Formats: sequence, structure tokens, C-alpha cells
Amino acid sequence: MIVQKYKDMLSGKSVIRQLSEFATARGAQIGYENVFDYSLGNPSVPVPQEFTDRMIQMLATRDPMELHGYSPSLGIPSVREAIAANLAERFGLPYEARHIFMTSGAAGAIAHAVRCVTEPGDEVLTFAPFFPEYHPYIDLTGAVLKVVPARVEDFQINFDAFEEMLSAKTMAVLINTPNNPSGIVYSEATIQKLADTLKRKSAEYGHDIFIISDEPYREIVFEGVKNPCVPAYYNNTLMCYSFSKSLSLPGERIGYVAVNPACAEAETLVNMCGQISRGIDHNCPPSIIQLAVAQVLDKTADLSVYETNMNLLYDTLVELGFTVVKPGGTFYIFPKALEEDAKVFCEKALKYDLILVPSDTFGTPGYFRMAYCIDTEKVKRSLEALRRFVETEYGISRKGN
Amino acid sequence: MIVQKYKDMLSGKSVIRQLSEFATARGAQIGYENVFDYSLGNPSVPVPQEFTDRMIQMLATRDPMELHGYSPSLGIPSVREAIAANLAERFGLPYEARHIFMTSGAAGAIAHAVRCVTEPGDEVLTFAPFFPEYHPYIDLTGAVLKVVPARVEDFQINFDAFEEMLSAKTMAVLINTPNNPSGIVYSEATIQKLADTLKRKSAEYGHDIFIISDEPYREIVFEGVKNPCVPAYYNNTLMCYSFSKSLSLPGERIGYVAVNPACAEAETLVNMCGQISRGIDHNCPPSIIQLAVAQVLDKTADLSVYETNMNLLYDTLVELGFTVVKPGGTFYIFPKALEEDAKVFCEKALKYDLILVPSDTFGTPGYFRMAYCIDTEKVKRSLEALRRFVETEYGISRKGN
Repeated sequence: MIVQKYKDMLSGKSVIRQLSEFATARGAQIGYENVFDYSLGNPSVPVPQEFTDRMIQMLATRDPMELHGYSPSLGIPSVREAIAANLAERFGLPYEARHIFMTSGAAGAIAHAVRCVTEPGDEVLTFAPFFPEYHPYIDLTGAVLKVVPARVEDFQINFDAFEEMLSAKTMAVLINTPNNPSGIVYSEATIQKLADTLKRKSAEYGHDIFIISDEPYREIVFEGVKNPCVPAYYNNTLMCYSFSKSLSLPGERIGYVAVNPACAEAETLVNMCGQISRGIDHNCPPSIIQLAVAQVLDKTADLSVYETNMNLLYDTLVELGFTVVKPGGTFYIFPKALEEDAKVFCEKALKYDLILVPSDTFGTPGYFRMAYCIDTEKVKRSLEALRRFVETEYGISRKGN
Repeated sequence: MIVQKYKDMLSGKSVIRQLSEFATARGAQIGYENVFDYSLGNPSVPVPQEFTDRMIQMLATRDPMELHGYSPSLGIPSVREAIAANLAERFGLPYEARHIFMTSGAAGAIAHAVRCVTEPGDEVLTFAPFFPEYHPYIDLTGAVLKVVPARVEDFQINFDAFEEMLSAKTMAVLINTPNNPSGIVYSEATIQKLADTLKRKSAEYGHDIFIISDEPYREIVFEGVKNPCVPAYYNNTLMCYSFSKSLSLPGERIGYVAVNPACAEAETLVNMCGQISRGIDHNCPPSIIQLAVAQVLDKTADLSVYETNMNLLYDTLVELGFTVVKPGGTFYIFPKALEEDAKVFCEKALKYDLILVPSDTFGTPGYFRMAYCIDTEKVKRSLEALRRFVETEYGISRKGN
């Protein structure tokens, strides 16, 4: 018998995917260079040359049996060691190899982290605006994802709403900073208050509440912005990392869970991840990719383009009268739409070949997301389209303001 | 709160892993070349040079953004197409790209296939002797794995026991041919009778029963042995394949589910796999590895060493008086131990630096597994140790028989 639950999911078409398909079709008509496609969060800068060089070098010189052999289910020991040493040096926390579990990207990391600390029926809280894939990530484990409404003035945490939603059923809080879709980085004050709240509530409920910190954008932080290291503020933190964005390697599915050494039973949690893998059949990420990233831990792709793009867009959006919080990192910006229904707003933008994503699935209606991981030259050309769109559809002419 | 279920699993130490650790420790004492380590099923021949060449060529010449970009969750279209064409040509079944779902090895394939066709509480039947990881693979989905006792005379299917265990709760039958640990290949008569039984029972119960066919050893079949293509006999077949053994790439985690085109709602099942991924967070296997294997689908590692090793071992085992069914493929052989308790038998063998795996976890007590994916030269040297072991411990001298 075919399982109905998964069959039913097929009818729920992704808005982002539909928009991306529209962009591709429109590109075939007028040339893709003329479609201002801000729909997809795909890195737009190449992997560092060192990664490619190391891959080729390993393929050309290493014993293939060793190179392509099974990784232990927790990850290749030398790789875990290199990552722990890198984290320890950067963040001043005593990470060792035994705190690291290698995964297939941040998605794989979250799959393990959630299963470590929640049973079916337990609650996981996250904060709007949030990455919509959190729903299947959490829902299909049997745990329940609850979304705390956004604090729209700055997209930091709405602590009043958070306190109201916390309960004895809350086993984990899933945060994502720098944030997709808002581009916001949680301030030190936010992280500190989150930590204080969870310590107080853990004591009140008599059980640990874990922070699952989804950090694929950790390396994309803009000038003058401080990105606090979450485990430095809260012991029970499971850091979920991916090299997809920092190294521009999204297809190679490589990341890790780093369990805070100060976490209760830290090593047990890592070992549990290895058991969880047996049930969801990851086993381990690809050996050669593990070995390659371990050799370029201090490198990133040239991420500066994202800040350049952000500044161009932010300045123009402000000039055009949008309400918008300036991103502190990522390659996303999340302005308020110029009418209540963001879907209608984004629909109208299509006429100007602007592909914008309405915010409804991010848990904060009335906004739209622009993923500016595209060429700066194209961002510049898009500004004129944005201006025409706003002036024509909403009669706002602020040119020269 | 740390989830007890996974924590409890940590105390269950794998026998195979313990033996492998013993072998490593003993190797440090007397030189690993003197330890006859038959414990681990790791390929012992290198990946074909073509694979390495294609990997280097892609890294050196392709646009890295494209090469390392996200794969669609069902797999890269050109890769799915190449695999389907290859299957169609080899097996004469009308596979198309839409029938292929790319996975992280056969383990990943089974993770998706089982979730497609079973809900928690449903039963999956498998046949002893069986790969012990089937337990976590199935149990942790919530379905129940039931093991049909072995037909020890030839390790084909014990149909009487099978009929007794089939019930309205049976949603899938998980088979593994060529088989780990017996090395046996199911005959055409076995597959035909299995298909006939399941057709009859599906009609009787009023629901489809699926065959999940775990085929990582498909390419390792010995002279004169026919390996029937399961979907040619039974429509509702989900073939789970891995390139780990055929290409000697176990660490790179690459395989697929091929849904039989004749299967009810074949394409829906493939699309459902994409939804299941969102809950177990595979997403897709690594892009570069997908692209590389698609270019060497007609290649294998030099698998002939396994048949050479099997013949050496089989002849000596028979000569020494063991009851043993001659393997038709794989790199395993599964003789009857010379005393009732296979653990005691394997314990005694350690004194002769023979690392043999007792069969209890394979669901057929009283046997032992030898994984002969080691150098032929070492197999030859091990025969003398085997002879000394048997003669000394069991007083059987058949030299020259």
C-alpha cells in the first residue's frame, strides 16, 4: 500500500519552485540575463580554487581504496579533529573531535539534532520569519513545530510571544542566525536573553531545553555586524553547520553537528547521532568531500559580492519608500510589501521581470524575500526595473529624494 | 531531554565491529599481514581508473557553480536518464528517468523505499540469513521486521515458513540477492515462486505487497550462475542499488531506487521519495559523485578476485569437512560451524589469527561468515591457519583426502 501521508504532500507545490520555473520559462523568451530572478538561495560565487586543487590532488595521488573507503558513521576521525580544532580556535570553546558528528549538510545535521532531543509529540519552537523547510524537517519526526510570531521592527526575537508559547512540552528551540529570509543577525542581547529565558524555563520544567542552532550563513556577515557564537551563551546548544554557502558547495551535501562541550552528556549525544543515522540511513557524508573540506577550513568563497549586492538593494529600497530592516548577513533581504497581500504584490512585480518571493510561507505575511546571490551587474540593472515597478503600480516617485 | 531510545542503542556493541577492532589491535602486535581478517565487507579492489579520470576532468574543466550546485531532490536529470537507459538495455524493462530516485547508497534507498510502502505497525518480512542492519533500518521507521527462518540446505527461500508468516499486516518483503551473508543467489524458480505467492496474497489481502530488492552485490555473480532480474518477475518491485561494491566506492554513498515501470503508480512513488527526503533530510546524494558514476555505468572494479578467493576457500572448507553452500556471488561465504555455538567456534579461531564472524546476528545460529574481500595471497596463507585450527581444535585431519 502506498503511504498516503507522502502522497498527499505532492499536491503542495512550493511557491519558490513555481517562481523559479516561471523565471526559467521567461528567460527562454527574453534571455535569462533580462529576468531579475531573486527567487533561489543558490550561491553565486565559485568554490575556492584550493578546494578543487585538493580534490584533484587526492584523486591523483591517494590510494583509491582509502580515499573512497567507508567513513566511520560519526565521520572520518581526522576530519572531525580538524573541524573541532578550527572551532576551538575561532570561538574559544574546548571542542574536540568527540563533539563533532559529520552530516549531509545542515539539513542532515538538523535531522539528527532534532531526533536526539525530541520524541513524537514534543514541541520545537522557532521564530518567524523562518525557513519553510523546517516544517517537514520537524513535522515528519513526529515532533510539533510551533512558530513564534515575528518582531517586525527589527526581526530580533519577540520575547513576549515566546514566553507565552514556551511550555513543559518544549524540548528544543530552533534558531537560524544569520537568518533566512530576513538576513538579520541576532544581537548579543538577543542571544543572552534567549539563553537566560531557557535556563529559567529548563529549571522550571525540570528538563533541559536545547537550542538547535542552524548556521549555514555563519560566514556571511557584513561589515560592523557581530555574530555571537551561540554555544558561548548557552550550554545545551547543538550547532548545525553546512559548508554549502561558505564554500559554495550546496550540491555536495557536507556539514556537521557540533555539540557544545559544555552540554550535558555531550559525547553521548554525538554517539546517539550515529545510532539515529541507522534509522534514517545517512550513514555518513561522502568520504572524499569530508577529506577535502577539512583541508580548506580557513577558506571561504569570495563572499563580498553579497554585501555589495545588499547595499545596492537596501539603498534603493529605502529610497523607494520601502519599510526594510538592513540585513546583517546572508544573501537575503526581507522588505515589507507595498500592499497587504504580498502574493498580489509579487504577482505584479512579474510584469517587470522581477522575481520576488511572497513571505506567507516564511510565517510573516505582507513581506517579500529577495535572494541577491546573483551577479552585481544584474542587481544594478534590476534597480531600474524595481523603480519602474513601484512608480507604475503604486504611484510613488521618490527619484532624487 | 535526551531521547532514551537512541541512548539505549549505544550499549548494543556490534560483534563485527568488535572483531574488526580485535583484528586491528592484533595487527599492531604481529603485523596486519599476519591477521586473517575476514570480518568486514569492504571492497578490496580499487575503483576503475575511468571514475578517477572523469572526476579529475570535471574538477579541472567544468564551471564549479554548476558542478557543485544543488541537485534536484530526485537526482540530477541527466544522471537519472543515464541510469534508466542502462537498466532498460541490460534488463529489457522500460525504465525511464522518471522511475529513478538517486540516494545515498543502498541504505538510503531502503530508507526511502520502506517509508513509501509501510506505516508504523505494518510488517516487513525478510529471510534469514540476513544483513543485521535491516533491524535498525526497519525498526526505526516504526514498521516491524519479521525474519523468516533459513532454508539451510541451500539458503533459498523457506516457503512453508514464509506462508505461515505472511499476514494482512505484511506490506513489503525485503530480499537481498546475491545475499549477505550466505553469498547465495536466488534461483529463477525461487523468484518465480516468491512472485506467485505475493500475487496470490496481495489479492487475498486486498492490498499490494511490495518487494524491496536490496541489490548492492548485483554485479558480483560467479561463473555459471544466473542472477534473475526481480522486477521482470514481479511488478511491485522497488530495486535498491548501491555503487559501493560494483565500483568500490563505499564511502561516497551513491545509489538509487529504481521503481519498476510496471509498478502501480510508479512515478508517484518516485516523487514520494522526494517528499520522504524532506523528513529524513537526505535531500540528494553529492552532485559530483552522481555525475561521475553516470559516466561509468558500464564499468566495474575488477571483481574477479572475489571468485578466485571464494574457490580457494570453498575447496578447502569442503576438504576440511565443513558443511557449506557454494556462493553464487558477493564476497561472503557462510559455512556451518564445527560446534553448536558459533560464538565459541569463532572465539577459538582467534587463537589462529582467523577473524570469523559468528552468525547469530544474521538470524541463523550455528554458522559463521567469512568476508573474503582481501588479497588472494592472504587468502592462500590463511588456508594453512584454517587447517591448523580445525585439526587442533576439532581433531579432524583430512589433509590429502
